[in-house]
Amino acid sequence: MLYCIGLGLADERDITIKGLDIVKKAKKVYLEAYTSILMVQREQLEEFYGREVIIADRELVESDSDVILQDAVSNDIAFLVVGDPFGATTHLDLLLRAKELHVPVKTIHNASIMNAVGACGLQLYNFGQTVSMVFFTDTWKPSSFYDKIKENVNNKLHTLILLDIKVKEQSEENLIKGRKIYDPPRYMTVAQCASQMLLVENTRHEGGRASANKSQSLQ
Amino acid sequence: MLYCIGLGLADERDITIKGLDIVKKAKKVYLEAYTSILMVQREQLEEFYGREVIIADRELVESDSDVILQDAVSNDIAFLVVGDPFGATTHLDLLLRAKELHVPVKTIHNASIMNAVGACGLQLYNFGQTVSMVFFTDTWKPSSFYDKIKENVNNKLHTLILLDIKVKEQSEENLIKGRKIYDPPRYMTVAQCASQMLLVENTRHEGGRASANKSQSLQ
Repeated sequence: MLYCIGLGLADERDITIKGLDIVKKAKKVYLEAYTSILMVQREQLEEFYGREVIIADRELVESDSDVILQDAVSNDIAFLVVGDPFGATTHLDLLLRAKELHVPVKTIHNASIMNAVGACGLQLYNFGQTVSMVFFTDTWKPSSFYDKIKENVNNKLHTLILLDIKVKEQSEENLIKGRKIYDPPRYMTVAQCASQMLLVENTRHEGGRASANKSQSLQ
Repeated sequence: MLYCIGLGLADERDITIKGLDIVKKAKKVYLEAYTSILMVQREQLEEFYGREVIIADRELVESDSDVILQDAVSNDIAFLVVGDPFGATTHLDLLLRAKELHVPVKTIHNASIMNAVGACGLQLYNFGQTVSMVFFTDTWKPSSFYDKIKENVNNKLHTLILLDIKVKEQSEENLIKGRKIYDPPRYMTVAQCASQMLLVENTRHEGGRASANKSQSLQ
């Protein structure tokens, strides 16, 4: 059985009782750690669980996941995910591959930013579509987020913006030359996100109520 | 300190380690139990926690919450909520009153249907605004849900529909006569929700892509 276990959002004590029981008994414990940030180090999880935690980076999850899945055919394998297992497409992909291989899967839900954002005081049912903000580069400044936020504003809905994370990424040069050298991890700040939003706003100069409201929300 | 603790969605073992530690040590443990359904009885929670659990019904939370809050000025009080504490307006109201009374509050997040709905395979970031469906009566058939779903469909977004719950409700007659006699609890089924949707669809007869898509999603 493959157990996909949500860890919640802060530290090692945000796991559920149900999740912890499985972690303690599983043959192997993997931690997916490149789509979100947990606020504690792996060592702290290991100490609390009393178990070795294997970091499942992008390579392992996206290329070598069959190793995990084959193991789960006849053993209990715990796959830990920051937040909730269904917060990111990556995990859904793993679940679909498990289904193809007839590996049984069980999910242990937990809080994700998609519901914990309610802590800011805005009502969850007044949120529209969630958008992602990627790191702009010199040549790549995708602005599709702008239209989605504008649509939400026009419908009087809030927008949750998920900020980009780059962990274990290769530079273009290293990728081409096949060198397994990785850039230092980067996590987008709110200020970076806001400046990218303003950049697009200044390019588009879209007037009217929608952009006026949006500017207010940036202040 | 008032601790608002999410219980997650299924049973007594979906509470987090952090939440359980507080429950075990708190002076009093309340359970809000009229906006959602937990899949287990109070007795099962009590046995697992080793604590008495006081049911906080609508009356207690909305009218007599000052008792809870005054107690929390100098004691640790646990207020348990099915799902996540920020899933429903009711709890936010309690938090605002706590703030007014200068009672410190801490929230322990957990899964709610707002993120666990990802388990159905649809991507969370492709959901638009969440809507509520209330029980229709002979004289009250609010159809504002229709426009919101239509808006989501037009924007190619999924819709999460929250179904009505009536727990400890008085009939109009009992309410007027001040008799504290309560109707049996009612929980809307998916079939009931679908039939109310079809009723409004048949009244409105709004053609085009939007309603065509919506009908498909009902099949």
